[in-house]
Amino acid sequence: MCDTKNSYLCIGLDFDLDKMKNKNVKDLVSLESFIKDVIDSTYDLCAAYKPNFAFFEKYGPSGMKLLESVVEHIDYRSITIADAKRGDIGNTSACYAQSVFEHYNFDAVTIAPYMGTDSIIPFIENSENGAYLLCLTSNTSAMDFQYKNSNGSMLYEDVAKLASKINNDNLGLVVGATKNDHMQQIRDIAPNLNWLIPGIGNQGGDLESSVRVSNSKQGSGLINVSRSIIYAKNQDLDDIRKSASKYNESINQFLG
Amino acid sequence: MCDTKNSYLCIGLDFDLDKMKNKNVKDLVSLESFIKDVIDSTYDLCAAYKPNFAFFEKYGPSGMKLLESVVEHIDYRSITIADAKRGDIGNTSACYAQSVFEHYNFDAVTIAPYMGTDSIIPFIENSENGAYLLCLTSNTSAMDFQYKNSNGSMLYEDVAKLASKINNDNLGLVVGATKNDHMQQIRDIAPNLNWLIPGIGNQGGDLESSVRVSNSKQGSGLINVSRSIIYAKNQDLDDIRKSASKYNESINQFLG
Repeated sequence: MCDTKNSYLCIGLDFDLDKMKNKNVKDLVSLESFIKDVIDSTYDLCAAYKPNFAFFEKYGPSGMKLLESVVEHIDYRSITIADAKRGDIGNTSACYAQSVFEHYNFDAVTIAPYMGTDSIIPFIENSENGAYLLCLTSNTSAMDFQYKNSNGSMLYEDVAKLASKINNDNLGLVVGATKNDHMQQIRDIAPNLNWLIPGIGNQGGDLESSVRVSNSKQGSGLINVSRSIIYAKNQDLDDIRKSASKYNESINQFLG
Repeated sequence: MCDTKNSYLCIGLDFDLDKMKNKNVKDLVSLESFIKDVIDSTYDLCAAYKPNFAFFEKYGPSGMKLLESVVEHIDYRSITIADAKRGDIGNTSACYAQSVFEHYNFDAVTIAPYMGTDSIIPFIENSENGAYLLCLTSNTSAMDFQYKNSNGSMLYEDVAKLASKINNDNLGLVVGATKNDHMQQIRDIAPNLNWLIPGIGNQGGDLESSVRVSNSKQGSGLINVSRSIIYAKNQDLDDIRKSASKYNESINQFLG
């Protein structure tokens, strides 16, 4: 998808009715048609869309119906990533995998590492689906646990090593764009894992390092931008498309 | 609730249509009335119910409607714990908190620690709600990362320490019943945190240690049992009530 479209951009579909600048969007019905318009205006510019489940779950079952129709509307024009950060004991992770892959029909999902291998396997068993495992996250408190160091290896490095080991040709890493000092180290540990990189835009991550380090001989990196695209300027479709286009161009420029 | 009911039992409502022994339950409609009957047959025996979101999410929006009606049916007769293991950057965790506490009206939620403090705070800001942070989980792969040791402190101990520090009188820990060798250590680190203890029954956890260690002068422990109650024998209401009653009695016996 990235090569066909000449895009390594992922657009985060994290709309929040309480924060809309576009005043025509006031309820779930108008939000649904707005999100569909945003997709129609941007799909040629992005390799993937990543709706974060929290922004749909807050509306209860109606929000999940909206999520269903968003994935349906994307209709394979871009990769779909369920940003859900799930993880539980094996039989429960299997139900989550059934939810994101079979019910909602996503291509990939983000997952959390704390519970270890058996919580991850159900998401990568079927090689037609993929998962991105949280490795080094973009938020400030990432340092609370992810930098825990033993025998010269930080926790996020351990996560990258385990991911490499259990990879079924469909496991990637989430590496925050704000953590550019540690990117090369992660790339060296897991040279062939694909990355999903949040933290560009509002969170202040470093786009150049993110693009250059993530894209290596064997691995590639998908740059996620959420708020800086979907809330661009006045939040008109034109503003959104322009912002998506600008990010896509910057990414391609750094790719050389 | 525990004292009023003389119960430290939490029943995990993790029904799976693909695994029902009760052959009258074949679809979401019959499952809804069955879960309501199970609640009516057991609420006097348990302090809390804990539906795991995965078992509802796998059915999409209809599953979430079922979850809504389950919480509504419990109707404050027991504490409700959303077993969701959520965790994301601050503004996203805030949406998850809105989902579980405001939309679905749960009393408490389980959360994942990997992303650190700012991913936890939104769940405990309102002291009327509570959260249980994954500390040492019941599954085999818990050892992959949770036992990571630096400066004489394992990762799960670091989590217990952080939880103690940011506790807003409403943060507890998830400690697996299969990890009895480490329970006292966690109780010593965080003497006043309440525990939610999964892993009894099918997973083979140690009920006696779980009850005795979790319940101390300052902290208490809620023992969760899922499959061994809700799939008891032929999965008739009578079998389920008997199993719940048996677990409740054993817990109370160990409490002395």
